[in-house]
Amino acid sequence: MSGSITIAGLGPGAEALVTPEVTAALAEATDVIGYIPYVARVAPRPGLTLHPSDNRVELDRSRHALELATEGRRVVVVSSGDPGIFAMASAVFEAVEAGPVAWRDLDIRVLPGITAMLAAAARAGAPLGHDFCTINLSDNLKPWALIERRLELAAQADFAMAFYNPRSKSRPEGFARTLEVLREACGDARPVIFARAVSTPEEQIRVVPLPRCRPEMADMRTMVIVGNSATRIIERAGAPIVYTPRSVPA
Amino acid sequence: MSGSITIAGLGPGAEALVTPEVTAALAEATDVIGYIPYVARVAPRPGLTLHPSDNRVELDRSRHALELATEGRRVVVVSSGDPGIFAMASAVFEAVEAGPVAWRDLDIRVLPGITAMLAAAARAGAPLGHDFCTINLSDNLKPWALIERRLELAAQADFAMAFYNPRSKSRPEGFARTLEVLREACGDARPVIFARAVSTPEEQIRVVPLPRCRPEMADMRTMVIVGNSATRIIERAGAPIVYTPRSVPA
Repeated sequence: MSGSITIAGLGPGAEALVTPEVTAALAEATDVIGYIPYVARVAPRPGLTLHPSDNRVELDRSRHALELATEGRRVVVVSSGDPGIFAMASAVFEAVEAGPVAWRDLDIRVLPGITAMLAAAARAGAPLGHDFCTINLSDNLKPWALIERRLELAAQADFAMAFYNPRSKSRPEGFARTLEVLREACGDARPVIFARAVSTPEEQIRVVPLPRCRPEMADMRTMVIVGNSATRIIERAGAPIVYTPRSVPA
Repeated sequence: MSGSITIAGLGPGAEALVTPEVTAALAEATDVIGYIPYVARVAPRPGLTLHPSDNRVELDRSRHALELATEGRRVVVVSSGDPGIFAMASAVFEAVEAGPVAWRDLDIRVLPGITAMLAAAARAGAPLGHDFCTINLSDNLKPWALIERRLELAAQADFAMAFYNPRSKSRPEGFARTLEVLREACGDARPVIFARAVSTPEEQIRVVPLPRCRPEMADMRTMVIVGNSATRIIERAGAPIVYTPRSVPA
């Protein structure tokens, strides 16, 4: 029997946002591997072995998945959101490239999912309706100076911006500095969306003008979206609608 | 009875990529509105009125949807991919902002979907596994000079890039110029993914080094993804794997 490895996106949290393709892959899996809270979203059943692992062991986890697949297992590596956006797919391919040549011939598939920025944008309106960029604000795997340079160039390009991993207990300073860079580069006009735990019972959406943003408004479960210079706010009785128009006048 | 308007993403084409949330919204709709090929993906049933309309009438379509909702209908506006990414959500909110104040109090929801860049990236590997930007290459609604400036700044930021609407019969020149700008700004090293009609029976994925890209490789059904300077290609018996590593060395 030949094994396979499927890198699947579970979406931001709600079961109604898991694609049927991913549900089908999980139903056929012999092994599910991933970070503890994501594996916890998969129901146990006979014939399925769950392999929850801690955070920050992405390469070990990837090698484990690849080894199981070479033994003929049908392995699903689960990510939250989309596996290709700051999640497990790149880690698995890093392991493939550095590993035995035989790993290259495995049946490897990536199944897309609803990544956090799409779910967060949908809840707020349509802040990513025009050109935008997507930046991982964690400097665990890249120099902070590169992040700042990207923020400055993104502001010059007048991109809306979606930020993953804005702030953690071990990195409290980066997001504060991000807000400073944006205030210098963008002026005061931009609305900022703090979307926490979107599609879960703990969901919270806040829309805050850039000058009034404080670092504590974000944590690791928060997706931050910054509008571009044309982003609009429609005030109404409930939560405001934030959207970026499609057009830029000539 | 109070009406509602739901702006729903159907994903790139395959039914297995439609979220259960969107399927449920379609099952409860009284009216489905959208561009002809997207409305054609919704099965007719008693009690459901389908309103297919031509391309480039997004504001008319949005106003029609809003009017039906004020009459108490449960309206679903369908987009392919994700409605918030170069699709119908911004158009509906433009209509809301310009329309009668009563439209602001309607029950309006956006349901995210698998946008083309996620599906295309998944098929190729993980080219968007590090910071990236997303640009609509159509200059129907913005000046071409702005697109060129964004391309140059994105290259300076060393973003991977995802391009929507790269080329159409009425705009044959823009993508040729895009390739020229990228060759000047990025040098020769970058791989380019041409992902056509992803998840449909006509799907075709090609990976081409930037110097060998030709404008004719893209059309309006093609998603183009350009790697960043660190993007890797893993050669193997089948299609190569293209991925962008998570790390940038200090």
